[in-house]
Amino acid sequence: MSGSVVVIGAGDALGGAIARRFAREGLQAVVVRRHADQLEPLAARIRAEGGKAHPFGVDARDEDQMVALFQRVETEIAPIEACVFNIGANVRFPIAETTGRVFRKVWEMACFSGFLTGREAAIRMTPRGRGTIIFTGATASVRGREGFAAFAAAKHGVRALAQSMARELGPKGVHVAHTIIDGAIDTAWIAENFPQRYALKDQDGILDPDHIADAYWMLHAQPRDAWTHELDLRPWMESF
Amino acid sequence: MSGSVVVIGAGDALGGAIARRFAREGLQAVVVRRHADQLEPLAARIRAEGGKAHPFGVDARDEDQMVALFQRVETEIAPIEACVFNIGANVRFPIAETTGRVFRKVWEMACFSGFLTGREAAIRMTPRGRGTIIFTGATASVRGREGFAAFAAAKHGVRALAQSMARELGPKGVHVAHTIIDGAIDTAWIAENFPQRYALKDQDGILDPDHIADAYWMLHAQPRDAWTHELDLRPWMESF
Amino acid sequence: MSGSVVVIGAGDALGGAIARRFAREGLQAVVVRRHADQLEPLAARIRAEGGKAHPFGVDARDEDQMVALFQRVETEIAPIEACVFNIGANVRFPIAETTGRVFRKVWEMACFSGFLTGREAAIRMTPRGRGTIIFTGATASVRGREGFAAFAAAKHGVRALAQSMARELGPKGVHVAHTIIDGAIDTAWIAENFPQRYALKDQDGILDPDHIADAYWMLHAQPRDAWTHELDLRPWMESF
Amino acid sequence: MSGSVVVIGAGDALGGAIARRFAREGLQAVVVRRHADQLEPLAARIRAEGGKAHPFGVDARDEDQMVALFQRVETEIAPIEACVFNIGANVRFPIAETTGRVFRKVWEMACFSGFLTGREAAIRMTPRGRGTIIFTGATASVRGREGFAAFAAAKHGVRALAQSMARELGPKGVHVAHTIIDGAIDTAWIAENFPQRYALKDQDGILDPDHIADAYWMLHAQPRDAWTHELDLRPWMESF
Repeated sequence: MSGSVVVIGAGDALGGAIARRFAREGLQAVVVRRHADQLEPLAARIRAEGGKAHPFGVDARDEDQMVALFQRVETEIAPIEACVFNIGANVRFPIAETTGRVFRKVWEMACFSGFLTGREAAIRMTPRGRGTIIFTGATASVRGREGFAAFAAAKHGVRALAQSMARELGPKGVHVAHTIIDGAIDTAWIAENFPQRYALKDQDGILDPDHIADAYWMLHAQPRDAWTHELDLRPWMESF
Repeated sequence: MSGSVVVIGAGDALGGAIARRFAREGLQAVVVRRHADQLEPLAARIRAEGGKAHPFGVDARDEDQMVALFQRVETEIAPIEACVFNIGANVRFPIAETTGRVFRKVWEMACFSGFLTGREAAIRMTPRGRGTIIFTGATASVRGREGFAAFAAAKHGVRALAQSMARELGPKGVHVAHTIIDGAIDTAWIAENFPQRYALKDQDGILDPDHIADAYWMLHAQPRDAWTHELDLRPWMESF
Repeated sequence: MSGSVVVIGAGDALGGAIARRFAREGLQAVVVRRHADQLEPLAARIRAEGGKAHPFGVDARDEDQMVALFQRVETEIAPIEACVFNIGANVRFPIAETTGRVFRKVWEMACFSGFLTGREAAIRMTPRGRGTIIFTGATASVRGREGFAAFAAAKHGVRALAQSMARELGPKGVHVAHTIIDGAIDTAWIAENFPQRYALKDQDGILDPDHIADAYWMLHAQPRDAWTHELDLRPWMESF
Repeated sequence: MSGSVVVIGAGDALGGAIARRFAREGLQAVVVRRHADQLEPLAARIRAEGGKAHPFGVDARDEDQMVALFQRVETEIAPIEACVFNIGANVRFPIAETTGRVFRKVWEMACFSGFLTGREAAIRMTPRGRGTIIFTGATASVRGREGFAAFAAAKHGVRALAQSMARELGPKGVHVAHTIIDGAIDTAWIAENFPQRYALKDQDGILDPDHIADAYWMLHAQPRDAWTHELDLRPWMESF
């Protein structure tokens, strides 16, 4: 196998689906979340499907850890052909009840770690003149909303990062893309916390992580004369 | 074969590539431009590739002709599973030199005919609760520019139409999408009029119609839990 | 008095308020709607407030009539210092029930007449290197919506026109602005058709035309080092 | 005098002009920057113009200091009727050379301190059901750009904050606005670093801080039935 995909935020259903999708195409899947031991089921599944998995426990907000991770992947595993940043931090508070700690933490998780991810991937890909970096966005990436000041500020920040990187790195051969996931994803978290919403699954009313992963692979596979920088994904019945 | 794709504006390289792409997937290709006889080379190529082609000469700005076309496709050929509106009308004039005739004509070609296309497709698809309608947009769809008042007004109009239709028809099972093609496409027209630009083809600096067509097929093939309403497509070296 | 303001679409409360506001500042108010006789109450009010009013009955969709109007204002009244396009055409139909006639008529009223207005004003202002052209927009100018394909397409078109004109004419000293009025305006039409909404007037929940007119005057009065191209206006309690 | 305006980031020409403008209207000007002693010339000028000035040295990134500041203004000076956040942090680095320290510092200065400002103002204004909070934005607030990942991420974040706050607080009577300053402002910094650009001042090619301040006062003075959430300001000759 000649290349790797690094998925930062492989702890949820979506990160896992993306890693599996790219692994099926022959990329070695470097799956990353805070605690490596929680990655074992995912790694096992990737291997069972015939792929290679490399789980890493890394705090994506920690610059030293991130630099070390990317360096290690390049030297010990394979050149990074694709990199996906997939960490969210959806919280909801009235502005008056949003503490500085929360505002900062949401930004560190959802934006600062995205910056570290993007930069480290860019540093490796730019000299080779190829590679794909994808940032997972949400409706809050393009629209502020009552109660979502912290989350929207962080997600808008990631989008600005992705756009700035695309304008700098596109002409250097690196494809930077941003997705806007607008709707609930089929995860255990939605099942538990929003059961009514989850019930829409029977009608395809929530997003299947495998289908989002297909879109990510499509982005990576696009020939460089026709790159997509941004696309949205939502269930047919979702109002927007 | 169980369904058809209708391509309104099959006269250029892109319309042709889209028709061929969908025909390869088994849809009967209904290819439409003003003069049917000019469609023969495209129809012959689709057939040579193993597909079925039905060329029609229709003025897409004429409501009666368009209603008749869609009716005939449904009754004589096959249910319309996908419909692509692909007519542009890129002109450039200072505002003071833009005649009412030009402003109106650009709108009729690039927007009004898009409305007729979208409506007629919607009327057929909605009762079946499925189908895909794709509108081809451009940078002028999202940004006005000096000299492009007529073109940008028409293209913004199509985008508003696509967005309004998506919000109405999505919950009825019909997928409405809008693409933003940002860059020169590999066509005879670019080759003749912008030779310097065309020379970038060697570096993948202009869009290959077949690659745009791949994106359109991807949109049509998306499962309904993860639909894209809008995506952009541009060469890696295009500044934006 | 040394200059005039031309208000195309002076038939509603907003057009009237704008004309009165600019007249109070010393500009001769050229007020235009389809039927001149209906302009008498407005003209009388402007005169009662110490201003000068010149009512004209013109079909703003008719190029010849519009050219003649602007020519006549310049030669018989005063140089046009400000010009406001204020015609809407808010209709709501499902896409399948939107006739070609409706789609075209809405565009002619809300977009094509805006183009004629902007062009004729630009032709007079550009040689003088000064002047203000303001287009009245709405939420539909920036967002398509179920049932509003015709209206949104026309309003998006006007916005593209305004943006294209601003980029061309700004560097020539002509200020082109676009407003996004997001909410119900205090008009007889709202009072009759949306009485519940109109009742919000007691809480300042609908827009006072005089306050919108203040914003238009502010736009015209801006020094050229700090021009606004676009601003929104909405009641405090309006959700957006 | 019955109310105060708090200007966070009163260290540059714009912050000073805003404070003076609001002071001229009778509000007590609370001017804030890192080092209070540097505020003396501004305070002296406000007093010379007949206003009241209260300089404070506060690190706007420090939550405790900010909470204390707002509390003290309310108890010792006057109710906060208007609050302006005016701190930028424009830096330019290729993505590969953007350190975590820089990315974080730009965010802390330009976004996190904006959050603290907005929250503290909101906490005081909401119970009174009135007040205005204005955030100064830039082109980078709406558009990422090569080399500006850190700055654009922070400015996008502020815009998301402003939009989220407007949607939450508007219906509670608090006016939240965001400006997009698109062009060079007449400051010593521009004069020194961009002399060619500064030379455009003779042609009104750079923004006069007093004119921006007029726009801010206009926002504060708007009656609540016609509030502007966002407006841009740019010199006539600025391309955009």
